[in-house]
Amino acid sequence: MTPLVGKDIVSAFDFERADLLRLFKLADGLRGEIEARGTLDYGRGKVMITAFFEPSTRTKISFQFAMVRLGGVVVDFIEEVSSLKKGETEEDTMRILDGYGPDVIVIRHSRPFFPHSVKDFVKAPILSGGDGTNEHPTQALLDVYTMWREFGRVDGLTVGVMGDLKYGRTIPSLSYMLTRFNDVTVYYIAPKQLQVREEILKKVEGRIEYHMIENVEDVIEKLDVLYVTRLQKERFEDPQEYERLKGTYVISRGLLERHGKIPVIMHPLPRVWEITTDVDDLPQAKYFEQARNGMYVRAALLKEVLGI
Amino acid sequence: MTPLVGKDIVSAFDFERADLLRLFKLADGLRGEIEARGTLDYGRGKVMITAFFEPSTRTKISFQFAMVRLGGVVVDFIEEVSSLKKGETEEDTMRILDGYGPDVIVIRHSRPFFPHSVKDFVKAPILSGGDGTNEHPTQALLDVYTMWREFGRVDGLTVGVMGDLKYGRTIPSLSYMLTRFNDVTVYYIAPKQLQVREEILKKVEGRIEYHMIENVEDVIEKLDVLYVTRLQKERFEDPQEYERLKGTYVISRGLLERHGKIPVIMHPLPRVWEITTDVDDLPQAKYFEQARNGMYVRAALLKEVLGI
Amino acid sequence: MTPLVGKDIVSAFDFERADLLRLFKLADGLRGEIEARGTLDYGRGKVMITAFFEPSTRTKISFQFAMVRLGGVVVDFIEEVSSLKKGETEEDTMRILDGYGPDVIVIRHSRPFFPHSVKDFVKAPILSGGDGTNEHPTQALLDVYTMWREFGRVDGLTVGVMGDLKYGRTIPSLSYMLTRFNDVTVYYIAPKQLQVREEILKKVEGRIEYHMIENVEDVIEKLDVLYVTRLQKERFEDPQEYERLKGTYVISRGLLERHGKIPVIMHPLPRVWEITTDVDDLPQAKYFEQARNGMYVRAALLKEVLGI
Repeated sequence: MTPLVGKDIVSAFDFERADLLRLFKLADGLRGEIEARGTLDYGRGKVMITAFFEPSTRTKISFQFAMVRLGGVVVDFIEEVSSLKKGETEEDTMRILDGYGPDVIVIRHSRPFFPHSVKDFVKAPILSGGDGTNEHPTQALLDVYTMWREFGRVDGLTVGVMGDLKYGRTIPSLSYMLTRFNDVTVYYIAPKQLQVREEILKKVEGRIEYHMIENVEDVIEKLDVLYVTRLQKERFEDPQEYERLKGTYVISRGLLERHGKIPVIMHPLPRVWEITTDVDDLPQAKYFEQARNGMYVRAALLKEVLGI
Repeated sequence: MTPLVGKDIVSAFDFERADLLRLFKLADGLRGEIEARGTLDYGRGKVMITAFFEPSTRTKISFQFAMVRLGGVVVDFIEEVSSLKKGETEEDTMRILDGYGPDVIVIRHSRPFFPHSVKDFVKAPILSGGDGTNEHPTQALLDVYTMWREFGRVDGLTVGVMGDLKYGRTIPSLSYMLTRFNDVTVYYIAPKQLQVREEILKKVEGRIEYHMIENVEDVIEKLDVLYVTRLQKERFEDPQEYERLKGTYVISRGLLERHGKIPVIMHPLPRVWEITTDVDDLPQAKYFEQARNGMYVRAALLKEVLGI
Repeated sequence: MTPLVGKDIVSAFDFERADLLRLFKLADGLRGEIEARGTLDYGRGKVMITAFFEPSTRTKISFQFAMVRLGGVVVDFIEEVSSLKKGETEEDTMRILDGYGPDVIVIRHSRPFFPHSVKDFVKAPILSGGDGTNEHPTQALLDVYTMWREFGRVDGLTVGVMGDLKYGRTIPSLSYMLTRFNDVTVYYIAPKQLQVREEILKKVEGRIEYHMIENVEDVIEKLDVLYVTRLQKERFEDPQEYERLKGTYVISRGLLERHGKIPVIMHPLPRVWEITTDVDDLPQAKYFEQARNGMYVRAALLKEVLGI
């Protein structure tokens, strides 16, 4: 039995360094098995509920595919056609779903700390698929898994994370997970008003080296990885400010090729305009591979949590 | 072969007393098997279509979970993305779904008697998941199963049903099902304008003893079970009338503890404000257990109807 | 290995005559197996993604049922709750879905040639479930399969296709597929402004005999098959023109019985008012059978494309 059997995963801090390295190797192993044999048998008879209280595609379908390839079954709770419209609290909904006896529940919610608030009365293990602007621990899992696959290690990497660092929920989880490794340097690249929140910095203080800057071109040659996220228009009070900054936060082939070294380019996807499509063909563009990695590492996580 | 093989279930009257007692025991048996072994094999190769023409969560996911735990497969017909928008009649939709050869179809529809109107030309057995204000026979099944589990019998019970008894579809089915047992007394507790409909009383006349009252506190000590349902705001012509009555129809821990005896508290869920959350921890609060029971008794029903 | 293993199907022209005859026989064989044994084992471990970027019921659920009856699993990508709202291109979405490693993807899109535009970078075989007004190749497959079952052949048939021939996507695919047979005659029956498009006629020129007419009663006795489609109100600039023509394009029992011979009546469904329900009981009314045939012939197609 691995340490993760039956465990709730609501934060990137729920993974120890040893858990991560074990999951990454397991994900590689499952990849090989799935490529060779298709659907596996580990999950036979296991049932996962996906309970996404806000829209998602990437995360939900990635978890569903992972469960299906393990040989398990998915029951999808769809919010749109639900009793929530009748005013039921989501805590009640969780109690009821849990009562059916699922083997695991994947939750997404727009409210920060929703998974934390229900995990103690829900018997099934809960895997957070994102809680508002707070965290998205399995996104970090696939992000760091991708780095590990690219470099064979995470220790010692220099990572630039760029875009809306204030509201993006991938940023806190990625930052927290990187603290599990040694000698990691992070450059937070964002307009001042969208820089990473103080509460996040407090949690990584002294555990990673970090710098806050505004222009990616100032550091690009130092980076092993450039992790790009979107600037969402609706985050700006002044639309002109958005239009002014938008250009600065576009990673194009032209920008990349101006410099002596092109880092591995990652993105949690969906990508809109912040990476131009001419970047897609570069060998360093790993964002589609990264999404694919998500399926395998989530399969690894499910396998461990389900104890199968 | 049980008497229910291949049978359509569109009314609580479709169950005889012997069917109910057999289903309750089978549900208990399946509960034990599922708790011990997880997913079972009875339903292997069987396919259920859920065709819900109006939103639902509780009923649909409960049926889906039941089918999945029996080892069967679910194909979900989702109305939102359907040809109904193009003007197709729902009778045609049912003909087409049936043509694919499902082993069973679960239908919900806002139109009373919709399941009755299609069952004769649909070859697959049809299980009603609720038809407007008319009936909800499998809700009654889980309600009465819950009573049977709590008391070891249904005969002789005194049941208070409270809330909107005029429009709620759980009330007719529950009333009808209770006629299959001996010496049952029902207190219908509702504001006069939301009391149980005459047509329903006609069908239970002489088969259960019933009384219509307005205040739950007048009878609470006589009750074995208090079955609470919502008062929906939209049922009141005068909003002030709703606000005035709302308070009277709230079951709180304070109200319950004012009396010498606390009955088993049930609710079809979703619960909004009509049972306060401080009631949840009382040993008599059985509404989440009741929802859970629904999954097992629906599994029992599916097993019998599918003849597996 | 059949010629269709791993092949993308985006046009009716992707099927050769030999493919069609082989699929029709295979569909008949699968029908017998499914009727005798229920769910089969061919698809065990295979995973199909349905990626419908516009609403559909008939096609999607028919493919899902086919996959499930083959013993495979379906993961449904639902557009409504997707990242598309965040501005992601659908090409990116396809890349990501494909990255999860599905065995086959069924796509529907409102944009003509969308499946063609992604098939080269998507590794999984793509089956088009309809692309705007362009084509709907598996609809043609079930249409022609239905004719083959009714007459034991397709060669030599005389087929009337009626309704909105300009915008309906079933018409091009059906026309193209009929070119794979010998001595087929097609009567295109439509108001002048909704007649079949020139580009379609060019592709069938010299390969089927065709005539364009306005009134079905002029040719009904010559027809082996009358294939009815809807006239959609929104296609008419002048609502009065729609009201005037509507009546002429209604196939009623009265109309049919005025003539010496009643052809086999087909319809891609959903049917609204263009075939009156009193036609349903005629032995020549085959539209529900046609929908049912769709499930079997899609199962045959999946079996061949998956190489199982």
